[in-house]
Amino acid sequence: MELAVIILAAGKGTRMRSHLPKVAHPIAGRPMLAHVIDGARSLAPARICVVYGHGGDLVREKVPAADVTWAEQAEQLGTGHAVAQAMPHVSEDVVLILYGDVPLIQPDTLRSFVERVTPTRLALMTLEMDDPGAYGRIVRNAAGEVQAIVEFKDADPAQRAIREINTGILACPRKFLAEVLPKLSSNNAQGEYYLTDVIAMAVEAGLAVEAVQPAFPWEVDGVNDRVQLARLERIFQQVQAEQLMRAGATVLDPARLDIRGTVECGQDVVLDVNVVLEGAVSLADGVRIGPNCVIRNAQIGRGTVVEANSVIDGAEIGEACQIGPFARLRPGTVMASRGKIGNFVETKNTRVGTGSKINHLSYVGDSELGEHVNVGAGTITCNYDGVNKSQTLIGDNAFIGSNASLVAPVTIGKEATVGAGSVITRDVAAGELAVARGKQRNISGWQRPQKKD
Amino acid sequence: MELAVIILAAGKGTRMRSHLPKVAHPIAGRPMLAHVIDGARSLAPARICVVYGHGGDLVREKVPAADVTWAEQAEQLGTGHAVAQAMPHVSEDVVLILYGDVPLIQPDTLRSFVERVTPTRLALMTLEMDDPGAYGRIVRNAAGEVQAIVEFKDADPAQRAIREINTGILACPRKFLAEVLPKLSSNNAQGEYYLTDVIAMAVEAGLAVEAVQPAFPWEVDGVNDRVQLARLERIFQQVQAEQLMRAGATVLDPARLDIRGTVECGQDVVLDVNVVLEGAVSLADGVRIGPNCVIRNAQIGRGTVVEANSVIDGAEIGEACQIGPFARLRPGTVMASRGKIGNFVETKNTRVGTGSKINHLSYVGDSELGEHVNVGAGTITCNYDGVNKSQTLIGDNAFIGSNASLVAPVTIGKEATVGAGSVITRDVAAGELAVARGKQRNISGWQRPQKKD
Amino acid sequence: MELAVIILAAGKGTRMRSHLPKVAHPIAGRPMLAHVIDGARSLAPARICVVYGHGGDLVREKVPAADVTWAEQAEQLGTGHAVAQAMPHVSEDVVLILYGDVPLIQPDTLRSFVERVTPTRLALMTLEMDDPGAYGRIVRNAAGEVQAIVEFKDADPAQRAIREINTGILACPRKFLAEVLPKLSSNNAQGEYYLTDVIAMAVEAGLAVEAVQPAFPWEVDGVNDRVQLARLERIFQQVQAEQLMRAGATVLDPARLDIRGTVECGQDVVLDVNVVLEGAVSLADGVRIGPNCVIRNAQIGRGTVVEANSVIDGAEIGEACQIGPFARLRPGTVMASRGKIGNFVETKNTRVGTGSKINHLSYVGDSELGEHVNVGAGTITCNYDGVNKSQTLIGDNAFIGSNASLVAPVTIGKEATVGAGSVITRDVAAGELAVARGKQRNISGWQRPQKKD
Repeated sequence: MELAVIILAAGKGTRMRSHLPKVAHPIAGRPMLAHVIDGARSLAPARICVVYGHGGDLVREKVPAADVTWAEQAEQLGTGHAVAQAMPHVSEDVVLILYGDVPLIQPDTLRSFVERVTPTRLALMTLEMDDPGAYGRIVRNAAGEVQAIVEFKDADPAQRAIREINTGILACPRKFLAEVLPKLSSNNAQGEYYLTDVIAMAVEAGLAVEAVQPAFPWEVDGVNDRVQLARLERIFQQVQAEQLMRAGATVLDPARLDIRGTVECGQDVVLDVNVVLEGAVSLADGVRIGPNCVIRNAQIGRGTVVEANSVIDGAEIGEACQIGPFARLRPGTVMASRGKIGNFVETKNTRVGTGSKINHLSYVGDSELGEHVNVGAGTITCNYDGVNKSQTLIGDNAFIGSNASLVAPVTIGKEATVGAGSVITRDVAAGELAVARGKQRNISGWQRPQKKD
Repeated sequence: MELAVIILAAGKGTRMRSHLPKVAHPIAGRPMLAHVIDGARSLAPARICVVYGHGGDLVREKVPAADVTWAEQAEQLGTGHAVAQAMPHVSEDVVLILYGDVPLIQPDTLRSFVERVTPTRLALMTLEMDDPGAYGRIVRNAAGEVQAIVEFKDADPAQRAIREINTGILACPRKFLAEVLPKLSSNNAQGEYYLTDVIAMAVEAGLAVEAVQPAFPWEVDGVNDRVQLARLERIFQQVQAEQLMRAGATVLDPARLDIRGTVECGQDVVLDVNVVLEGAVSLADGVRIGPNCVIRNAQIGRGTVVEANSVIDGAEIGEACQIGPFARLRPGTVMASRGKIGNFVETKNTRVGTGSKINHLSYVGDSELGEHVNVGAGTITCNYDGVNKSQTLIGDNAFIGSNASLVAPVTIGKEATVGAGSVITRDVAAGELAVARGKQRNISGWQRPQKKD
Repeated sequence: MELAVIILAAGKGTRMRSHLPKVAHPIAGRPMLAHVIDGARSLAPARICVVYGHGGDLVREKVPAADVTWAEQAEQLGTGHAVAQAMPHVSEDVVLILYGDVPLIQPDTLRSFVERVTPTRLALMTLEMDDPGAYGRIVRNAAGEVQAIVEFKDADPAQRAIREINTGILACPRKFLAEVLPKLSSNNAQGEYYLTDVIAMAVEAGLAVEAVQPAFPWEVDGVNDRVQLARLERIFQQVQAEQLMRAGATVLDPARLDIRGTVECGQDVVLDVNVVLEGAVSLADGVRIGPNCVIRNAQIGRGTVVEANSVIDGAEIGEACQIGPFARLRPGTVMASRGKIGNFVETKNTRVGTGSKINHLSYVGDSELGEHVNVGAGTITCNYDGVNKSQTLIGDNAFIGSNASLVAPVTIGKEATVGAGSVITRDVAAGELAVARGKQRNISGWQRPQKKD
């Protein structure tokens, strides 16, 4: 049977107090709606149709998805009305209805849920709650068969005592849905067309309704304000941390790890407290990331250690390197093995050869360093003249003295030496020593400045 | 009816193991007692009287408050005795008794509490607890009316089974209190005058006692040691984080946000993990603060982004600026819009004009930068000669080469250029190029140093 | 009675997914097994015997312990078999059996546990659990006497309803153990020799079995995967944080403090959020450590403040110093009182005299600074020529201008001054001014670089 997934994403989300439509708010760095679409995709449906409304352009911009059909719900007339807007696009046998603000529904749960649907049976996702609050209650008959969903406002005390609630997630034959949607009435307190009325209609029509519970209650938690958003953010992060740990990474504090993207971890990776991983991050066997590091779009080779308070973005780092603390690697940094980038060092668009070191207080940009180069403390590659960027090349085994300024474009040859404090504006040949600094004068009888008023 | 608030703050707090009196220990950066005084002030009372004892001078120094009357309790003879020390200062109709070590009591709770008092009725704050421990129990008669508080030690098994406990917070007619305080006895196990005995006396005198519960149990939690202090610190932080979120800020992890002061947030502000906000902080619409930043006494303009691991103190930052990572803005830093301050840069007492950039490894202090200035990596303003601080002025569109030293007082004109590695001791006129560095010599046949033993 | 402790540490720990044997995985920076050995040592036993198996060499390398006897269990034939491997080494009166993967058992619990053993009585550690899962159940007779441990698989429904479970921790007379171990059978589902069968044998032999519960359930929690490892890590950290707080330190967030070693705290020490303390750390009265600091093997004197995002390793810091933010003190840094090391400053193997300051963007290594020295921003000690390290000496009251390079070995005399941007290669005598820089030339008519294609 072919499947269509309809995702309701038209709500404004007033309680978010945001210029951004609710479903565009991120969980783990990606819009909530993108998480729901991912969930839908895991079922390999023939169609995914998103019903949008408020801020629709912004939603489509934030959640680009070539495989999604967009249906507009111009007026907000209830969930039944929203689904009806999608129906013209839907011709598949089975329809699954998800919500753009219920982002953590899991593929396994969806799969077993959709499997329950037959031409004569609907599947309804429900949840047992200790404190069911104002959610719609699931009314069953004496045989335990689902009969209807009763909204809390319309429920009598006995019904309010029911602890099984409606999550809104529903899967059913398209044919049935097409028949009943036009029959929904808005003759109720809110003046809206409720999708929930479909259940009683199904029962009346002789269809069975199978209630299915998610594996975890948080899968069906919705987001209406930023307190709930933060709650789901933390649950999502906790789930990711557990996955990493079960796969063989040590996480010093799972409550203090943030993954906003995808992480591949080798064996015996150690993530210290308060690490943030963003984008596509790959950490080989034995990599250790120290406290308070932010790593974005980076590959880090086997056995490399990144010490505390480092920020890495867009870098490829080889094996057995030492990075940080307080290192800042920017995009285009490529390090071969056994290199070192130390404290208060910034690199950008730079290749660092095997065993080369930039240990302290340097800016190295638009550069290529050979093997076993030593860049002294305070070295700056002057790669920018105000309008153009130029390159600095440093050969194998070169030694750059401290506080040197290398004015690009410039080449420092293999085995060359640059004296401390030199401003190098011309190339230095292999093996040469280059010095460019004033002659020292020691002046006796110097009178120190006096305190002014 | 006029209200007086008496705050008991004389306890030593031995279990704090501190040289600081207990009530001076901070929650969210302010002494506990200051929080209680704030709560009292929210009722606009005619008088606030703090009863102090141990370390009284230190308490008054840490909690300066012109609107507070201080009453000394020289000897610690119990809560009843403490209140008695305040009574000579109090002539208002109603007296509310609070505690300096119960810091999180909320204005709404206090307001509805005090409203219950009439000339013939006391209000007593009580709490239902699952595990009431050794707290005093609230004894009610068959009609449910409060009859007395029984201390745990004196309670029989039936009384110990009572789950409603005394919080100590009490409001009553001053006249009644003035009558009964002298009648309190210290004829008990502790040899102290207990304020709690007042309840039974009220019942005997024909006054009603209305028990009122706080909105949240933590409002009446007290602090006796630093474990409890930390617990209330986290609750207070959680409450503040929720307020920010409900007002429209995204907080990536509410358990990792610390606010020690007041924060004004525009719409769609994003606070990443582990941010600390201190003093008076104002964040305009769309501001993003990265992980591990500390922001103190700062205004940050619309759309500005502060990246990870930055520390900002006493700065005004305009719109659409980029700060960090690893930026350190010190007091007196004023940035116009679209400026950039990058990694390992320190600024102090410096104005940065529109679109100007200090991207890397610089110290810029006591300076004024015009618009679209580019300060190269490693630039230092030499603003201190050992005794005096002097100023550096840099005109619009000036370009300061890397590793430059600008020896203040010095002026770099508009459109001027400073060559990399230059030490500038004289003014540079508009449009000029200034260079101050040694001539480069390349020496061949240079013998590298040899390893010594 | 002499005591022997046998620690079972032979399990592979497949679910750890690690090349490291399970018991070598760290809690608070030390192998789990080391924690268990510490627990054993607290009893001052005559012998500690560790039964190792998988990765034994690695275990012994990670957990060096001169007072431990190692017994190999070549094949994994069950806990009974493991204990049997240790018995040839054990001649003491009483045997206590612990587990290398149950790391948080506390000395007090162990002490009172072992005291229960007599020549006619065993002690068995058990736990009441709300959800006892698949643990072995403690079967008692009508008189409440322990009769046997029934494995979950072999338990009937009534036995499965028992909530008291076996922790595996056992203490008994050696003589009895030596008699029954050879009688254990592997005739069960797993084909293993179960130590648990010893209990029924004891009852049969007329010995009493006393069940003892730990003070805290987490004392008997075991580690089978990294999720459990992280859970115990956090519990251990929470326990340590509480100890510090009860001793008189303020911890802003006990859930964000990591102690991996030993910490001595004076009175009124304040640890802000997200601090990591490693190795042997000593913090005197009134020390304040800011957010996101990592402090390793350091002594910090009374009243010193370490500001946010600093990393300190192997340093001795005097009284009333100011460190950070963004300071990085490396091993061998020794500061006298009232010194300052500021942002983006790295020190290594350096003595800093009373009141001396290195406030900004400097690298000072292999140096000795006298008193009241001022090191300007951007100063670098050029201590490394590519092969050798040399020393820099700076006398009292010397003033080092910004962006200076001090090429070691070099001595700057007392009261001497170094001009900004100078490269100092020769000694400077007391009181002298040394300048080494190019003469400034201002060039008018300078044509700025043009944008290239």
